[in-house]
Amino acid sequence: MTDDLVLYGNKGWTSPYVFSAFVTLKEKGLPFRMEVLDLQAGQHRRPEYTEPSSTGRVPALRHGDFWVAESSAIDEYLEEVFPPPAHARLYPADPRQRARVRMVQAFVRSDVLEVRMERSTATLFEGAAAKPLTPAGRVAAERLVAVAGRFLAPGAEHVAGEFTIADADLALLLQRLVHNGDPCPERLAVYAQRVFQRPSVREWLKQTAWRDR
Amino acid sequence: MTDDLVLYGNKGWTSPYVFSAFVTLKEKGLPFRMEVLDLQAGQHRRPEYTEPSSTGRVPALRHGDFWVAESSAIDEYLEEVFPPPAHARLYPADPRQRARVRMVQAFVRSDVLEVRMERSTATLFEGAAAKPLTPAGRVAAERLVAVAGRFLAPGAEHVAGEFTIADADLALLLQRLVHNGDPCPERLAVYAQRVFQRPSVREWLKQTAWRDR
Ligand SMILES: [Ca+2]
Ligand SMILES: [Ca+2]
Ligand SMILES: [Ca+2]
Ligand SMILES: [Ca+2]
Repeated sequence: MTDDLVLYGNKGWTSPYVFSAFVTLKEKGLPFRMEVLDLQAGQHRRPEYTEPSSTGRVPALRHGDFWVAESSAIDEYLEEVFPPPAHARLYPADPRQRARVRMVQAFVRSDVLEVRMERSTATLFEGAAAKPLTPAGRVAAERLVAVAGRFLAPGAEHVAGEFTIADADLALLLQRLVHNGDPCPERLAVYAQRVFQRPSVREWLKQTAWRDR
Repeated sequence: MTDDLVLYGNKGWTSPYVFSAFVTLKEKGLPFRMEVLDLQAGQHRRPEYTEPSSTGRVPALRHGDFWVAESSAIDEYLEEVFPPPAHARLYPADPRQRARVRMVQAFVRSDVLEVRMERSTATLFEGAAAKPLTPAGRVAAERLVAVAGRFLAPGAEHVAGEFTIADADLALLLQRLVHNGDPCPERLAVYAQRVFQRPSVREWLKQTAWRDR
């Protein structure tokens, strides 16, 4: 019997990190159950969740009796345990391209904090209005555009040849600007919008108040 | 001819992420050159650095003509390109243990921000005095202690059996509390101090104003 897969997310479907793990599972065609926790009610703070997840945050993945938190760790685990060719490849085979994908995933999770805060996923998934960027927010937005422009080579459709999970992560980060009408070069906007047409991403968006613009 | 390895760090030797890549290179016994950039003078903002590194941050690794930034991406690249048994193993062979190591690395890089800010590496590596933690700092410190206590099973010497790069990262994060005399359970303090006895870590510490306490 195959061990069941359960992905723990939050009730509002607003976590970009749950998004990453969700897209990985969908791209790989893996059957899984979504368990949404009410963070406002503190469901993530109960020992039944903190003990196995260790971090007490979403996302966490349960695979049989094994638990792992942190979306990049979840994404990599799923790639290793459900590898190509039986399941879609989400990390490149070449170590250097794989390093680039990991670099993009790490950047998305640790950099341009002001963009992530001032252009929260509430503006994407909950219909919240975006206020004008602060000066610090504008600096971070400019940094995001500059760095993303180096991640995505001119003429390239993805950061590492074929679609990888880094494209889902980077597209969501860019949509914080694109979707809210902040300055963003056309080729990055086109990239983000094309990634957001993927069926895996559409399945996420269906759970939210996202409206194409 | 073997491609040369160059690690880009900052002049003050204060980056916990350069530390991670440095320890990886040292643990694997890889010859490399350290290039320290003067961030205050903006050396990292010159196109000669931003273009190949993409992120314009330290650390970046140059391996021959290949560049990668983001320490977790660098660590994983080095593991893949200089694998065991010829070089020390820094990621577990088992996918589930490897997932735990990635979870710890991701947590260190994205969580407990207030600890990282109020107990900056200046207090470890530049002799700076630590001010009392703010209320938010105390909450983050308590979270760090709680989560680290789940990462490190009772009686375990490392988070995943043998030493991995996650132990170096987690030990440095814990030393922000331990070294500054903040509350920390004995077993986590012992763990952090034991990791800090490793020759790879000692080679880093020699470059700084660190003094054992
Ligand atoms: Ca980073
Ligand atoms: Ca559109
Ligand atoms: Ca995290
Ligand atoms: Ca000591």
